[in-house]
Amino acid sequence: MSELVEIRVIGFGMGPDQVTPEAAAALRGCDYVIAADKGHEDDKLAVRRAICAGAGVELVVLVDPERDRSGDYAAGVRAWHEARVAAYRAVLEERGGTAGLLVWGDPSLYDSTIRVVERLTDDFTVVPGISAPQQLAAAHRMVLHEVGQPVLVTTERRLPEAVAGGATNIVVMLTSGFSPVGVDDWQVWWGANLGTSSARIASGRVGEVADTIRRVRAEARAVAGWVMDIYLLRAP
Amino acid sequence: MSELVEIRVIGFGMGPDQVTPEAAAALRGCDYVIAADKGHEDDKLAVRRAICAGAGVELVVLVDPERDRSGDYAAGVRAWHEARVAAYRAVLEERGGTAGLLVWGDPSLYDSTIRVVERLTDDFTVVPGISAPQQLAAAHRMVLHEVGQPVLVTTERRLPEAVAGGATNIVVMLTSGFSPVGVDDWQVWWGANLGTSSARIASGRVGEVADTIRRVRAEARAVAGWVMDIYLLRAP
Repeated sequence: MSELVEIRVIGFGMGPDQVTPEAAAALRGCDYVIAADKGHEDDKLAVRRAICAGAGVELVVLVDPERDRSGDYAAGVRAWHEARVAAYRAVLEERGGTAGLLVWGDPSLYDSTIRVVERLTDDFTVVPGISAPQQLAAAHRMVLHEVGQPVLVTTERRLPEAVAGGATNIVVMLTSGFSPVGVDDWQVWWGANLGTSSARIASGRVGEVADTIRRVRAEARAVAGWVMDIYLLRAP
Repeated sequence: MSELVEIRVIGFGMGPDQVTPEAAAALRGCDYVIAADKGHEDDKLAVRRAICAGAGVELVVLVDPERDRSGDYAAGVRAWHEARVAAYRAVLEERGGTAGLLVWGDPSLYDSTIRVVERLTDDFTVVPGISAPQQLAAAHRMVLHEVGQPVLVTTERRLPEAVAGGATNIVVMLTSGFSPVGVDDWQVWWGANLGTSSARIASGRVGEVADTIRRVRAEARAVAGWVMDIYLLRAP
């Protein structure tokens, strides 16, 4: 790795309307931005392209390595990070300078960019972006917790253990459908593709709105070609 | 209440550098912004003043009601909300139109603005802003959780029950000092006045860095005249 390489990890929320002045300035100071082409998420790449064009910064597109989702979750993520590291390192060694990496939402929640960058250099900075839980709260015009109470942020995969552990106010991310188990009498505030033209929201008692949410989720996917959803669950 | 009143709750992160284009547009569409003067936090009002001046929107300053911190926490917060509601209602009834309320950080976490606004009108919208946990994560260049793991966000007041309940990765907000109990061998990532010129960060094993954090926290308060800090605790 060239000693000249500096990396900026820049959160951009859900698109140009959420790029903070701080993020825009960090972006303009980059020599180029590296983005992964995940194939099935074309319009996500298009958003990065629009943001880079607006800042006058070149976008270097890499084909994202496949992630093995068949086995152990953590091992699958680690192997995927390894492949990303190798692909990014090749570009950085060839080009040097200051490279930007644009992160949907915020780099601090369920995003692998910082973990990948740590493997490449210690010379990096992070700029926060509007995160999905905030989008959800704003769309439903609510606070994520009751007065003075905690909120647990977790993955759909770990939701059952969160409920079993006594959590009563839970933001669920990394979803793959809407099928929370054993919480039929909880309230849910749900949103998909928030901040985009295909955004959808719904709320109510889980047992009453689950079918609606699954239907609306499919609509959002049909419109956008992809779906990213998130929800807040609160015990009665 | 005039039927013409619309309220926009607008998160602005830590200042002008974090005002998203979406927030700036919402602000420009306001007839005026209402802000509370808390007396001891003069430069927080100054930030609101600068943001409004930049957007060409009038700032209406109210003296914030005193909050009774002597008794039950939730009851104290409720009484404080009541007094705020009355003060805001008086302005809204006199002026009508579209009013903005600027929120430090994000309206979705430990902020009372939405709860106050709900008492005033149902005709309101919310724009998210960069929140303190994101600032903390960006300053320490880290993800708030280990791969695929949950993160609990809670208040310092409720930290003991979070630890007793088995949480091992905890963001602590609404602090009044740095004195976490029974977590000497946990790691801490701490930050004060993040995003401002008086920002400070520190990290390490709690038992080893607690004295340093208390000293640096006092420094931040001496420089700014106020201190807002936040920290992430992670079990060994």
